[in-house]
Amino acid sequence: MEKMLENIGKEIELKGWLHGIRGSNKFQFLTFRTSGQLIQVIAEKEILGEEVFKIVKSLTQETSISIKGIILANEKANLGWEIQLRQIEIISPSSDYPITPKEHGTDFLFSHRHLWLRSKKQLVILRVRSELSFQIRNFFHQKKYTNIDTPILTGSVGESAGTLFSTDYFDLGKAYLAQTGQLYLETAIFAHEKVYCFGPTFRAEKSKTRRHLTEFWMVEAETAFLENEQNIQFQDEFVRTVVQKTVEACKLDLEILERDTTKLLSQVATAFQVIDYSNAIEHLKSSGFSIEWGEDINAEGENILTEKLGGAIFIKNYPRAIKAFYMKQNPNDQKTVLCSDLIAPDGVGEIIGGSEREVDFDKIVARIQEEDLPLEGYSWYLDLRKYGSVPHSGWGLGLERLVAWVCGLPHVRECIPFPRMMYRIFP
Amino acid sequence: MEKMLENIGKEIELKGWLHGIRGSNKFQFLTFRTSGQLIQVIAEKEILGEEVFKIVKSLTQETSISIKGIILANEKANLGWEIQLRQIEIISPSSDYPITPKEHGTDFLFSHRHLWLRSKKQLVILRVRSELSFQIRNFFHQKKYTNIDTPILTGSVGESAGTLFSTDYFDLGKAYLAQTGQLYLETAIFAHEKVYCFGPTFRAEKSKTRRHLTEFWMVEAETAFLENEQNIQFQDEFVRTVVQKTVEACKLDLEILERDTTKLLSQVATAFQVIDYSNAIEHLKSSGFSIEWGEDINAEGENILTEKLGGAIFIKNYPRAIKAFYMKQNPNDQKTVLCSDLIAPDGVGEIIGGSEREVDFDKIVARIQEEDLPLEGYSWYLDLRKYGSVPHSGWGLGLERLVAWVCGLPHVRECIPFPRMMYRIFP
Repeated sequence: MEKMLENIGKEIELKGWLHGIRGSNKFQFLTFRTSGQLIQVIAEKEILGEEVFKIVKSLTQETSISIKGIILANEKANLGWEIQLRQIEIISPSSDYPITPKEHGTDFLFSHRHLWLRSKKQLVILRVRSELSFQIRNFFHQKKYTNIDTPILTGSVGESAGTLFSTDYFDLGKAYLAQTGQLYLETAIFAHEKVYCFGPTFRAEKSKTRRHLTEFWMVEAETAFLENEQNIQFQDEFVRTVVQKTVEACKLDLEILERDTTKLLSQVATAFQVIDYSNAIEHLKSSGFSIEWGEDINAEGENILTEKLGGAIFIKNYPRAIKAFYMKQNPNDQKTVLCSDLIAPDGVGEIIGGSEREVDFDKIVARIQEEDLPLEGYSWYLDLRKYGSVPHSGWGLGLERLVAWVCGLPHVRECIPFPRMMYRIFP
Repeated sequence: MEKMLENIGKEIELKGWLHGIRGSNKFQFLTFRTSGQLIQVIAEKEILGEEVFKIVKSLTQETSISIKGIILANEKANLGWEIQLRQIEIISPSSDYPITPKEHGTDFLFSHRHLWLRSKKQLVILRVRSELSFQIRNFFHQKKYTNIDTPILTGSVGESAGTLFSTDYFDLGKAYLAQTGQLYLETAIFAHEKVYCFGPTFRAEKSKTRRHLTEFWMVEAETAFLENEQNIQFQDEFVRTVVQKTVEACKLDLEILERDTTKLLSQVATAFQVIDYSNAIEHLKSSGFSIEWGEDINAEGENILTEKLGGAIFIKNYPRAIKAFYMKQNPNDQKTVLCSDLIAPDGVGEIIGGSEREVDFDKIVARIQEEDLPLEGYSWYLDLRKYGSVPHSGWGLGLERLVAWVCGLPHVRECIPFPRMMYRIFP
């Protein structure tokens, strides 16, 4: 499709779908969807003849068609060119297509997600997601990280036992759907040192916010001999690189979404700011936001901070009591842990959580017990602190939130092909 | 590590693990694991002094250490160079590491999978898997396929309802873990035309063969306007490309596995043979194998065919009765469907199943009913045959079987970081 402007005047044959149609008794303007693009096709009665023109005029939305026509330059067409129709063949009809050009409710659209995917914006969002996914893998491949696919079916539990989906597993009792691959990734650093996983993740949370899904894709990295500060730098390089490369590759797609890419590129042009949790609390208090040291920072608080500081920010060294058991205690301040959250601007909020991991056997056992987690389920994880433990750090990024930021969308549910929410498992 | 031979005589500082140690009262030979490689390190009493040499000699397996030394050329070392130790620091101790150089039983090793990953062969197998995964994604990215992540949690069912894991899903009843992303991929071809997914897949099969896992990774592709014969060509190009590129990138790894890469490369040098199912049955009968037209070809039959025909083979046009409901009826022979299985040689067996899809609404409804599948669960899938249906084809490849072939392994269970089998969910 890129080289059409070099082929003005030539004949072309294409297969695709009738995305939309409008016109008069002499001209019909077809929006034709092919290879994931929308192309303007002009049908003129004088050229086609009465009979063919009548067929064109009666075409219904989503009919699959095969067309022949001449490529014409047209500055007003979205691509700079259009097709003058010469021949048309119907592949398969379509009647009463449920998604019409009129406005539909959100619930209706998600109930017709299998068809809604064909819509202009939805098509483009998933193409951006696809590119972002590839750039993520490419980043790690170039840095010689080994891709370790961590299991979904697990006997032990990651972060919190209360929000797990479970299934019967033959004669072995229950298996749980993994909330994170981190603990498994940690086993692999002893062999590969630099590892990542990227796959679906599950949270049985009764949450209905615009930032939560019950099934979402997460990319997680784990690196041996890496300390928290270096881990933050690594995340910074990662996010800015994959966003820059995706914007570059998806320029036309982001234009369709009316995303201000100049602003986005300026947001990822230089290293993100890094502030201390305690510092963040002071900022919030001085903005009149009601919060005390020791409390978690909610979505509203995150927004205030990114607006005040003008971009994405890392907040580091949170209170130990509100973070996961595996985070390393801060040697300079025992109330906090060596961790970071990356907060994206424009209302997107937290996109990455990362930390240096606790490597002291006794400290980690104490934390598992404090959290009331079943110690026996972690026996294999604790082995990693027995046999040649090393300093290491890692992080996890939620793909849909990154897609939301890049595309400029308020809700993650359009950022995944088939969103799963508390009240939605269909189609 | 690649450029060490250019740095002979220079000092180097590395962190890693003591993989193994042997030697005398004057020399100790350490196998040092760093950056996923095994390096020979020579400790000489005369150079290190009595005290440090004593520490080295007492080092135990898997102790994490930081070393300083001089790079020396040594043709006998596996990498062509080794390190002469000058300084050593223990990062963290390791005592009674369970996996010793002696032989261990399979069950013991899989129960210690979190540590076994550090072993020479296991490390290399997962690096090959990682490269293969990347080459798969790279292939599709270059061909402008859109990556569509299909859901794991599903309300409807793919191939057979009897072998599904299920979980309670809030107030919506049961959700099932997807056995395939195909039906969802089919929805996306109407928007993107060329799509693929690549993620974990689940089969609650009570199967204990060396080719089955309950959780495995599958890559599936779906292409609009593609017929069965072209679909076979596409699979051929795909498999041969990703295997060639992986062998190229993992030469040293495959040497460690003692894989005959010359043989493997010759097996993927030219297009695979394509034979008809009926033809395959004749071949088998003439080999004295007991089978009748209409029966499925089991692992033994597959082996006979690949040996007789000397390489990987596509078997096409199977009997309709033994294949899935969504496969297109063969217009030239109504008893068969337009499909293909790719059988890999060397005892690996079926690695891909593919087909052209049935697009006729009435035929597909009849097949769903014949198979006793719940029609209402497929309402959204049937919509695809109502609104601008087009000819299309697709296929799915099991990653672990491809890894087994490339690495020359008899069993898929070593081809995934944490294998899930009927009797194994831990660690």
